[in-house]
Amino acid sequence: MSGPNGSLPLPAFLTKPFTSSATSRKAFSIEDVNPHVKEAQYAVRGELAVKSEKYRVDLANGESLPFDKVIAANIGNPQQLDQKPITFFRQVASLLENPELLDHPDVLTSSLGYKQDVVDRAKRLLADVKSVGAYSQSHGAPGIRQSVADFIERRDGYPSDKDSIYLSNGASGGVNTLMHIICADEKSGVMVPIPQYPLYTATLALLNARAVPYYLDESKTWGTDVADIKRALEQARKEGTDVRAIVIINPGNPTGASLPAEDVKAVLGFAADEGLVVMADEVYQTNIFEGEFVSFKKCLRELQKEHEGGKYDDVQLVSLHSISKGMVGECGHRGGFFELVGFKEEVKAQIYKFISIQLCPPVIGQCITEMMVNPPKPGEPSYDLYKQEYDGIKDGLRTRADALYNAFKAMEGVDCQPPQGSMYLFPTINLPEKAVKKAEEESRKPDEFYCLRLLDATGVCLVAGAGFGQKQGTLHFRTTFLAPGTEWVDRIVKFHKSFMDEFR
Amino acid sequence: MSGPNGSLPLPAFLTKPFTSSATSRKAFSIEDVNPHVKEAQYAVRGELAVKSEKYRVDLANGESLPFDKVIAANIGNPQQLDQKPITFFRQVASLLENPELLDHPDVLTSSLGYKQDVVDRAKRLLADVKSVGAYSQSHGAPGIRQSVADFIERRDGYPSDKDSIYLSNGASGGVNTLMHIICADEKSGVMVPIPQYPLYTATLALLNARAVPYYLDESKTWGTDVADIKRALEQARKEGTDVRAIVIINPGNPTGASLPAEDVKAVLGFAADEGLVVMADEVYQTNIFEGEFVSFKKCLRELQKEHEGGKYDDVQLVSLHSISKGMVGECGHRGGFFELVGFKEEVKAQIYKFISIQLCPPVIGQCITEMMVNPPKPGEPSYDLYKQEYDGIKDGLRTRADALYNAFKAMEGVDCQPPQGSMYLFPTINLPEKAVKKAEEESRKPDEFYCLRLLDATGVCLVAGAGFGQKQGTLHFRTTFLAPGTEWVDRIVKFHKSFMDEFR
Repeated sequence: MSGPNGSLPLPAFLTKPFTSSATSRKAFSIEDVNPHVKEAQYAVRGELAVKSEKYRVDLANGESLPFDKVIAANIGNPQQLDQKPITFFRQVASLLENPELLDHPDVLTSSLGYKQDVVDRAKRLLADVKSVGAYSQSHGAPGIRQSVADFIERRDGYPSDKDSIYLSNGASGGVNTLMHIICADEKSGVMVPIPQYPLYTATLALLNARAVPYYLDESKTWGTDVADIKRALEQARKEGTDVRAIVIINPGNPTGASLPAEDVKAVLGFAADEGLVVMADEVYQTNIFEGEFVSFKKCLRELQKEHEGGKYDDVQLVSLHSISKGMVGECGHRGGFFELVGFKEEVKAQIYKFISIQLCPPVIGQCITEMMVNPPKPGEPSYDLYKQEYDGIKDGLRTRADALYNAFKAMEGVDCQPPQGSMYLFPTINLPEKAVKKAEEESRKPDEFYCLRLLDATGVCLVAGAGFGQKQGTLHFRTTFLAPGTEWVDRIVKFHKSFMDEFR
Repeated sequence: MSGPNGSLPLPAFLTKPFTSSATSRKAFSIEDVNPHVKEAQYAVRGELAVKSEKYRVDLANGESLPFDKVIAANIGNPQQLDQKPITFFRQVASLLENPELLDHPDVLTSSLGYKQDVVDRAKRLLADVKSVGAYSQSHGAPGIRQSVADFIERRDGYPSDKDSIYLSNGASGGVNTLMHIICADEKSGVMVPIPQYPLYTATLALLNARAVPYYLDESKTWGTDVADIKRALEQARKEGTDVRAIVIINPGNPTGASLPAEDVKAVLGFAADEGLVVMADEVYQTNIFEGEFVSFKKCLRELQKEHEGGKYDDVQLVSLHSISKGMVGECGHRGGFFELVGFKEEVKAQIYKFISIQLCPPVIGQCITEMMVNPPKPGEPSYDLYKQEYDGIKDGLRTRADALYNAFKAMEGVDCQPPQGSMYLFPTINLPEKAVKKAEEESRKPDEFYCLRLLDATGVCLVAGAGFGQKQGTLHFRTTFLAPGTEWVDRIVKFHKSFMDEFR
């Protein structure tokens, strides 16, 4: 017998099996998989998304389907849906990737479009990170964290410290970090709004911790009701849950709600009384259509000022932001950050250690984070184009949000709250009894059945309300309003009519 | 009393505390932190690294220290240590960030240095990802996964399927994913080499699973000894550990070892007999100084061919690679991938769901992964420069590895295995009894004491052997050989002499 290279005889251990240990295992199979991974659910990229991806490939391969284009309204992925990146960000990023251009005499004088502030920004960022190919500090390059702190200070009118800023791998990376720190065992609980972005319940499932649901009030444009939250907390405590934190998503995902300062302060008051960490997911802070965004940090500082030495002094707040949403829409670059308020140094040391195990967030994403919080200013060479692009994207979102809202309002059995913020609408759908029965026959939840039918008929991919959680007996779907044009909205309207007719 | 804007009276819930629930909590503190996070240790970015960072800042602020430069030999961060990125990769990346340049008539004709293959590659990658600012599929863009599969096929001479390739956030992201899937509960165990890269034990600690150590044989240039591994397995099983997988790091981190095919096959035979998943960390596969790199995948396919229908058919292997190491050194871009061999579809579905919760790896990192596995070919316009840069980096590493090795060989009480691969040397240090006592007095491990003294005296930052694990009674340190020049090696030699003199 000859070895792999046809030359040497194989050593004995390769041909004779070892005496296998008494408890030697069979091949790793689904029964062995971590049960907490199996429990985790994440519908945003679930069956519907996978099917829509298949349709996209089928169409590209020339197959004939009832539609000529797949509309991914399931996921907040602006640039997949033709949203153009902001020129300033990308010009700077291109110089960061290829710093040799910075020394090239033609860069500013040629017609490539690079302006002085683009070159200056690239140089400043490179001085901070040295190379976008090098690891940074695990919580991000110090100059970038300083820039984030400056932004928060300008936004809120209260100081922010760069050593409380942690750059992250999108906001999702931040949520993952914080949940790992906060949840200690299977009794640990975190209050999560229902409906919610499923990252929260999925992460809690992975950690074998408890999601403590509290319901948002659809009749009040999906606002928070502290009395309800308190009831949910007490119920959980009765059941032995050690409730440690409360998550608020503002503006809301999937709800599109935007909380007034009064509601934000009510939650902070509740958290102060109950000793809960507040996790404020504020990734949609620039996606606001009604009123102004008010940050949890600002509200907390105001309350602390008004009640000096009072219950607000000990509130612990973490607020998260991201480059993936807003008018930036750079999800593929995986940038984001969180700010810690009121956390003790020993806890921060544990957070640092945790993130250091995964080394650091992507450095080019860190740089785009810096540009998001510190964009061109009036008078600077890139300002006009930046402003024009930014406003154009914002207006487009507003227009499509209104088009969708108006379409939903006119649809039989559909109730929709007016768009206030974020990138989503989350209408209630009242489906005929026959449709609910049909769904049951197919072992599907009724809203999943509806969304699947919609996808098959129109190529429009939504996410069923079941994927976010909803009050028993209600049905919803979530749609982004990112897809260009409004023709796809008509497709939904037409489908809905024929669906209702079929099952009436 | 007036409200935040000095206008409205505050609602009652802001001034009166709620009746606090019976079990309301105190502020979240270190006692509350997830105990598994607290247990996790990750010395590569630990106390020494933090102190060296402080020295760097002190020097920048003009403070006087016994050295004029900090040498970060603790971490494999090539571009922080002046390794230049490969031009082709960065030129393409700059076009991906700023695709408007692609349509610019001057890009190829001007003196900016962009060649036709750079433009072509950028166009091809953009066709696959659409925009580097868009989310990709959670396991990576399909064209990039195909390119990785093609690379593996060329490397090993055996087919590879793009649907078994998962792009990741560096190799660390892949390890995190796989450990989450493989470890089911507190009895689950994974065999880990000692010494090891501490990502493995840290991740197992976070998951509250068990690291089952097996020792590498320093006397055989840190090779694997299957009889020893088997003893460690049996011991663990006796203790009730459900051992599920074995990690091999080849080329070795921190050891610098490079395993011959025979050793790789011995491990595969052992895993086949014992039903263990094999996790092959092959991120240093191009950092090879002795012989050739042989992948676990290739060895497995050879064994399967030679023993058709035999025990190798069911072996489950995952092999990991990264853009952070090798001659690429793009750690800041957080790119990598793993390939699954022999895994069942239901298990792969769980892996997909798990990674989808964190959405997708950074897309520009995915693109650099594609370029790493599919660099310019002979005859293409960018080939000559690519080759020159690649070889230059490789030669530089070799030169510095030899300089370090020769220095260590000449140092009193130091034993070092010859450099075979990776970016590290891991010499044994025999410290005088007095030094060990002094360390004890300072409540430090002796090798940590040594490394701290070295840092204070010379600015050279190493990682103590204790951070990787080592046989009882032995002491080591790990150094990269990335820092340019060899002057810092002399600093170590001088320090060592005076340290030995002090404690003799």
